[in-house]
Amino acid sequence: MSSTLPDVDLTKLPTRAPKHMHKAETKREMRKIREELVEWQERLYAENKRSILVVLQGMDASGKDGLIRRVFSGINPQGVRVYSFKEPTKEELAHDFLWRIHQRTPGHGMVHVFNRSHYEDVLITRVVGLIDDATAKQRFEAINHFEKLLQQAGTTVLKFYLNVSEKEQEERLADRVSNPSKQWKYEPGDDQKTKQWPEYRRVYQDVFRQCSPPTCPWHILPADQKWYTAYEVARTLRDALAEMDPAYPESKLTRPE
Amino acid sequence: MSSTLPDVDLTKLPTRAPKHMHKAETKREMRKIREELVEWQERLYAENKRSILVVLQGMDASGKDGLIRRVFSGINPQGVRVYSFKEPTKEELAHDFLWRIHQRTPGHGMVHVFNRSHYEDVLITRVVGLIDDATAKQRFEAINHFEKLLQQAGTTVLKFYLNVSEKEQEERLADRVSNPSKQWKYEPGDDQKTKQWPEYRRVYQDVFRQCSPPTCPWHILPADQKWYTAYEVARTLRDALAEMDPAYPESKLTRPE
Repeated sequence: MSSTLPDVDLTKLPTRAPKHMHKAETKREMRKIREELVEWQERLYAENKRSILVVLQGMDASGKDGLIRRVFSGINPQGVRVYSFKEPTKEELAHDFLWRIHQRTPGHGMVHVFNRSHYEDVLITRVVGLIDDATAKQRFEAINHFEKLLQQAGTTVLKFYLNVSEKEQEERLADRVSNPSKQWKYEPGDDQKTKQWPEYRRVYQDVFRQCSPPTCPWHILPADQKWYTAYEVARTLRDALAEMDPAYPESKLTRPE
Repeated sequence: MSSTLPDVDLTKLPTRAPKHMHKAETKREMRKIREELVEWQERLYAENKRSILVVLQGMDASGKDGLIRRVFSGINPQGVRVYSFKEPTKEELAHDFLWRIHQRTPGHGMVHVFNRSHYEDVLITRVVGLIDDATAKQRFEAINHFEKLLQQAGTTVLKFYLNVSEKEQEERLADRVSNPSKQWKYEPGDDQKTKQWPEYRRVYQDVFRQCSPPTCPWHILPADQKWYTAYEVARTLRDALAEMDPAYPESKLTRPE
């Protein structure tokens, strides 16, 4: 259910689960996967040799926060850290765009989740005209080398784009106005955001084209149904961990001096 | 007096000042340059848009500490920070080799001096066999892209290798044993160090070959006479600043509302 095509047209990619997927069944499966994730994370932490970086990107209201809750609640928080990247501080702006990102990459044994990421520096910055195309190109290259550096140090990098439809986004943003438990998420200008879709689509598509090497592809996931997106992320994460196959280290107890 | 040749044979490069350079005269010139540096650093700091990274590498007792004192004393310490990279901590080892380095790169307006640097991870690590040639190659590439990233963000990167002769090093190391004010620098194994020269030369030469793009060359300096090395570093730094030509920003006082 993920695409890593070099040339992506977001308007042609699904925003809803495939027909054969059913909510109740998927949720049951999801519970199973989460149990597996708990076990795998423990092993990763105990092994203490490799790590995982989950990068989440998507339009406003595409469901990033909820997804993190759905996938990572229940996993030992000692081994999981979530970082949100908002507008950079003055100090961060005084450095290269990867400076603040690099400080938050996972050490051995850890799973870090980036709620937005270094990709913002080739997305919103382009839409609002803070950087030109030449700078974007330099940054694509820098990002690819940066992710390669992490991979070479034992970090598995998983990148997810939450593909929400304009209609669904509009409904969710409206909900932020009317639903008291969601009003805190409302920001002035939310209602303007849908107008920038074509521009955001263009720069996102450029990211998928430029920063999706076979070793570090983007996973573009339908995001109109939250249960399905969470399932896909959890499944991909579980598969990545199974592939890494971290092992408990030999006990020091049983080794005689 | 600096070399940026792609193929370097350290045994053939000078360790002493050129004949025409005289100590007293050079020291006078050095005082002048230091005054210029004070002024340039103030402008760089006030402009607050670009930065400088000075990377110092060299064998033990090649004179890195003294050089920092000779070149940077007198410059406003608010705009200068020196970082020494020693054996990495457990937390640092749990990340990629550039993680701890990136945290210490200069922000706008700053001059950072690295007393040893990310290059240790392709030097001592190779000599003691912690990494193989393939990993070294990956790291050379990562270093080049890392330095490019810094440059693109407005950091001028100046890399100096202090080329000391084996004989001079031996004398300095012996001085650490006999001179009470230098004994704190003595470390067990110092006397073994000269034995590893051929191996260190080999890996250093590899660094000069692999990590000296025209935009970010190594400066290999004779280092048997400390007054001369300091002069060369100060001069190169002054020239780099003159080239950058940082300017005081327009005063907010004189701008009417």
